[in-house]
Amino acid sequence: MADSKLPKSLKTGKNVVIEEGVIIGENVELGHNSVILKGTQIGDSVVIGANCVLGIEPGSNKRMRKINQASRPLIIKKYTRIGNTVSIYSGTTISENVFIGDHASIRENVSVGGGTVIGRAAIVELNSTIGKDCTIQTLAYVTGDTTIEDNVFIGPCVSMSNDKYMGAQEYQLKGPHIKKGAKIGNNASLLPGVTIGEQTIVGAGSVVTKNVGNNEVVAGVPAKRIKNP
Amino acid sequence: MADSKLPKSLKTGKNVVIEEGVIIGENVELGHNSVILKGTQIGDSVVIGANCVLGIEPGSNKRMRKINQASRPLIIKKYTRIGNTVSIYSGTTISENVFIGDHASIRENVSVGGGTVIGRAAIVELNSTIGKDCTIQTLAYVTGDTTIEDNVFIGPCVSMSNDKYMGAQEYQLKGPHIKKGAKIGNNASLLPGVTIGEQTIVGAGSVVTKNVGNNEVVAGVPAKRIKNP
Amino acid sequence: MADSKLPKSLKTGKNVVIEEGVIIGENVELGHNSVILKGTQIGDSVVIGANCVLGIEPGSNKRMRKINQASRPLIIKKYTRIGNTVSIYSGTTISENVFIGDHASIRENVSVGGGTVIGRAAIVELNSTIGKDCTIQTLAYVTGDTTIEDNVFIGPCVSMSNDKYMGAQEYQLKGPHIKKGAKIGNNASLLPGVTIGEQTIVGAGSVVTKNVGNNEVVAGVPAKRIKNP
Repeated sequence: MADSKLPKSLKTGKNVVIEEGVIIGENVELGHNSVILKGTQIGDSVVIGANCVLGIEPGSNKRMRKINQASRPLIIKKYTRIGNTVSIYSGTTISENVFIGDHASIRENVSVGGGTVIGRAAIVELNSTIGKDCTIQTLAYVTGDTTIEDNVFIGPCVSMSNDKYMGAQEYQLKGPHIKKGAKIGNNASLLPGVTIGEQTIVGAGSVVTKNVGNNEVVAGVPAKRIKNP
Repeated sequence: MADSKLPKSLKTGKNVVIEEGVIIGENVELGHNSVILKGTQIGDSVVIGANCVLGIEPGSNKRMRKINQASRPLIIKKYTRIGNTVSIYSGTTISENVFIGDHASIRENVSVGGGTVIGRAAIVELNSTIGKDCTIQTLAYVTGDTTIEDNVFIGPCVSMSNDKYMGAQEYQLKGPHIKKGAKIGNNASLLPGVTIGEQTIVGAGSVVTKNVGNNEVVAGVPAKRIKNP
Repeated sequence: MADSKLPKSLKTGKNVVIEEGVIIGENVELGHNSVILKGTQIGDSVVIGANCVLGIEPGSNKRMRKINQASRPLIIKKYTRIGNTVSIYSGTTISENVFIGDHASIRENVSVGGGTVIGRAAIVELNSTIGKDCTIQTLAYVTGDTTIEDNVFIGPCVSMSNDKYMGAQEYQLKGPHIKKGAKIGNNASLLPGVTIGEQTIVGAGSVVTKNVGNNEVVAGVPAKRIKNP
């Protein structure tokens, strides 16, 4: 594991694997049994738990997408904390002061803004953008090609999808667009391509099938306006 | 790994990490690559799978809670079985004869009663109490500050929340209170602070927005009584 | 770890554990810290990520089922790719060209057909059969005793159950039966024993409480027909 270029301030647990080309800043902590794959860049004062796998190269089979690009590294910026048993792909950038809970998984070509919390066992698929100071709660599912602006709250177990034909025909995959300050209640379902307006609130367990404007409160199956601004 | 104080009856796999101050009873089994963090107490005849991380100290960022307390250990009592790739925090007590499925995660300051099953990939957040002989099914989400009494059945993918303002204002976080023998159907959503009465049944996919009495059967979005006792 | 019978073409990462009686084909890759338990059979050109646990023997407590059978191995056929932090039990067969996402978990006595994708953090319980060329999306839950025929699409976060009395009385557990080409929208809930007909579409967030015929489109809570063939 040990590489002559690793900083002396690095604290590593047992059985840690650091592959070639990994760049690690000052005062980083790496938990036991964590695996840092080649090329990953870790900023100053980042803390990573045990049993993580960071910097995974995308794989695929015939029914899955793979982004065709020159391989880019996973970049984790300073002061970010990553829990235990987390997996993150290459080509993704995690900003400063982010918190990523245990068992979370983040795919390639994702951007996570500063100060955001990604909850335990939350999953973020490829090509998605998450803004600053968001809370993505436990077990929430952020599908591919999703845009989440700043200060958004995604409740626990929220589900999204990005394929309205469910694999049946060619379709430009498109996840939801969730605007600034919107709040999505727990276990709500968002359909492909819906827009949720700024500061809008979606009730728990709702199914959002159409775009929702700014400053609305919607709930139900399908979700309907229950209160005006 | 090996510590002179570990009992001779301990069976450990490869690459196991046991930190200082860990107390292990007789006839314990630890799977490959599992990590037992400092101070954890493991009772007699406990079986732990591979790739677990047990005894995690809570971390946080600015939008997350952390219990401010003297550090207490994780205590796992005798005959309990823990699967693979499980994470459990310090300050939590798991009673005797509990079964915890693979990929499950349990936070700090939680109490799990004897004979209870915590399903695969189920998540239990901080400050929650789960009674005896409960079944918490696969992928169920027990939010923070939840009380689950004895003999409760929580179906697969059940979702709970504990923050009715979704981070928007100061609020005393409060999870559901689920009384003795209640049964919650799969993928139901429980809102913050709701009480579910004794022996009450909540239908699959329901959204429970208000308290429900004892011996009722409720279903729908929002959940309504569909049958009297 | 190294066993004299392992093929020279095997590429293994660091800290890999391969137990006795494991059979590995040609040109296999095993990621760092992965654990291959005794008797597992891995076909040619299989690629396995880091931190996996493969070939787990079933355990149980008093409120859980365990199949009473002579121990059978986990069999993974050629060209299949398995992600990171995946767990799979003994007695299960994964066919050729399958893709299994990170954090997924598959129990014993399961059969997965050729070309199928099992998404990230998806969970498949015991005794279930999944056909060829299916897509089981991220965080979907396939309960025990489920039959999924060929070319089925199960959306993200779909939930199923197999116990209509939720542990309250003796019952022959029965999961859904999902016929050829059916498509289940994200976060839909399927009740125990329901049949979903061929090519039928179930809307996102629906709760399916009764059998649905072929070529239908159903949605809502409970799910009702919204369009005829």
